[in-house]
Amino acid sequence: MTSSSSETTNAQSLRNSLTQRAAELEATLNKLLPRMKGGEANLIEAMRYAVLGGGKRLRGYLVTEVASLFNVPVTRALYVGASVEMLHAYSLIHDDLPAMDDDDLRRGKPSTHKQFGEAIAILAGDALQTKAFEILAMEETHESTKIRIELVKALAEASGSTGMVGGQVIDMEGENKHLTLPEVLNLHAMKTGRLICYSAEAGAILGQASHELHNHIISYGRDLGTAFQIADDVLDATASAEELGKTAGKDTAAGKSTFVSLLGINDAKKEADRLVAKAIRHLEPFGDAADNLRALAEYVVYRKN
Amino acid sequence: MTSSSSETTNAQSLRNSLTQRAAELEATLNKLLPRMKGGEANLIEAMRYAVLGGGKRLRGYLVTEVASLFNVPVTRALYVGASVEMLHAYSLIHDDLPAMDDDDLRRGKPSTHKQFGEAIAILAGDALQTKAFEILAMEETHESTKIRIELVKALAEASGSTGMVGGQVIDMEGENKHLTLPEVLNLHAMKTGRLICYSAEAGAILGQASHELHNHIISYGRDLGTAFQIADDVLDATASAEELGKTAGKDTAAGKSTFVSLLGINDAKKEADRLVAKAIRHLEPFGDAADNLRALAEYVVYRKN
Repeated sequence: MTSSSSETTNAQSLRNSLTQRAAELEATLNKLLPRMKGGEANLIEAMRYAVLGGGKRLRGYLVTEVASLFNVPVTRALYVGASVEMLHAYSLIHDDLPAMDDDDLRRGKPSTHKQFGEAIAILAGDALQTKAFEILAMEETHESTKIRIELVKALAEASGSTGMVGGQVIDMEGENKHLTLPEVLNLHAMKTGRLICYSAEAGAILGQASHELHNHIISYGRDLGTAFQIADDVLDATASAEELGKTAGKDTAAGKSTFVSLLGINDAKKEADRLVAKAIRHLEPFGDAADNLRALAEYVVYRKN
Repeated sequence: MTSSSSETTNAQSLRNSLTQRAAELEATLNKLLPRMKGGEANLIEAMRYAVLGGGKRLRGYLVTEVASLFNVPVTRALYVGASVEMLHAYSLIHDDLPAMDDDDLRRGKPSTHKQFGEAIAILAGDALQTKAFEILAMEETHESTKIRIELVKALAEASGSTGMVGGQVIDMEGENKHLTLPEVLNLHAMKTGRLICYSAEAGAILGQASHELHNHIISYGRDLGTAFQIADDVLDATASAEELGKTAGKDTAAGKSTFVSLLGINDAKKEADRLVAKAIRHLEPFGDAADNLRALAEYVVYRKN
C-alpha cells in the first residue's frame, strides 16, 4: 500500500476517534458492571478484570461508528457496543482456559483463570455472556422492543453454535489436519467474522437502516472480518509476544492451517489488501461520514497487535 | 404428611401430566437442536447429549403448566420451556467440569465432559446458553416483541451474576466455611431458586398475567424453589447414587453448610413441608386449574431423585 497524505489525515482522525470511543466504552462497561459487596464480589471482579482496561475495542467501535451513520444517539450505541465487548471478553476467557488454548497471557496481563482460578473464570465467562444479552434487552438500549429483539437474535446467531462457538469447535478439530482454503475461510467467517459482522450490523439495526443500506453494512462487516483474520494470521506468524500482548506463533505450534500456511505471507497480505479495498467500496453510499470506517478497514490490516 | 385419597388422585394426575409434557418438551428440544453435518456436528451432539433424554423437566413443566392457567397455546409455552431446560443443561455441564464440582455422573450417564472431552463440554454449555436466549427472541415463541423482551430480561436476571451464576460462586466460596441459615437461604435462592422461580414467572409473562396474579405466581415459584433445595439437601444426605442418578453425599464431602447440616434432617423436612403448604396457598386464586401445580409442590419434596 502507498501512504498518501489523505490516508495519513484519515488515520489520524481514526486514532483520535478510537481513543475517545474506547474511553466512552470503558466508562459504559464500568457503569454496567458495578463492584458489589456480596459473596459474588469475586465473580464481578473477574468479569471486570476480563472486560475492562484493555483491547482495541474494535467491535464496540464498529457498533458506535456504524450507528453514527444513521444518527443514533451515542449513549444507546455505547450500550450495544459494551454488550458486544462483554460477549467478546467471555469468548476470550473460555478460549484461554487450560482445556482450550491454555493461554496464560491476554492483553499483556495474566489471563482470567491465571488471576482468579479456573472455576471463577468459567463462571465469569458465563455471566458475561448473560450480561451481554441482558443489556440488549434493557429499555435504555432502545425504546423499541422490536429493535431490541432484533439485536438479541442477531447476537445469538452470530455467537452460538452456528457462529462463533461453532467456529471455535471447527478450529479445534482442525488442529493437525490439513484444511483447504475454503475450509479456513468458513472457519474464520464463523469464529471471528460473524461477531465482527454483527458489530457493524448492530449499528444498522439501531439505526433502522433501509434494507439496501443494511446490506451494504453487512457486506462491509463481512470483508472487514475476513481481512482482520488474515492480518491476525500474518501477525501471529511475524510479530513477537511483546508486540501482540499475547502468545505468538500459537497457530503454527498447534499445527493449524492458516491463511499464511496456505497462501504464504505475501499472498496473504495481498488478499487482505484486496478485502480492505472491497470493504471500503461497500461504504460508498455513506459519503464522507464513513471516513472513519474506511480508515478502520485499513487499520485492521496494518495494525501491529 | 398424611396421604388422603384426593392427594393420590392429584399425584396420579400430575404423574400423567409430567410424563406427557416431558415427551412434548423432548420433541421440542429435538426440533430446536437438529443434528448437523458440518464441522460443528460434534458440538451439536454434545448439546443434544446434555439436554435430551433425561431429567425431571421440572423447569420446563412449570413454564407450561403456569402458562396453561392463562390459556397460552401450548406450542409457545413449550418453546419457553425448552429454552429454560437448555439454560439449566448448560449450568449442569459447567457445574460438572473438573475445575468445578468434578462430577463424572449426571442423570445416570457419564457427564458431558467425560463423554466429549472438556473443551467441547465448555463450548456446548456456552452454546446452550446462547440458544436459550435465541429461542426466547424467536417469533414462534410469541408474536409480541414486548413479551419476548420481558422473557429475555427475566431469564438474564435469574441466571447471571446476580442469580444462578452468582449463587454458584457463593456456593463454591462457602466450602469449608460455616454459613448461617440466612446465608444458606440466600445462596440457594440465587443458585437454584431464581431459575425455578423464573420458570413459573415465564408462564405468567407469556400469559400476560395481571400484576396481582403475576405476584402470586412469583411467590409460588419462590417457595417452591426453596422447598426443592431443602429436599435436595435431604436427598443428598440420605439417598444412594443409584437412586439419585448422580454422586450422593457431595455436599458433606465438600464441607458445605446445608439445610441438613444446619437444621438436622427432621427439621429440614418440616421446613420443606411448611414451604409446600405456603406455596400451595399462593395458588388459591386459580382454583382447580392449578391442581397439577399444587401436586407439583408436594412432588418436589417427596421425590426420590
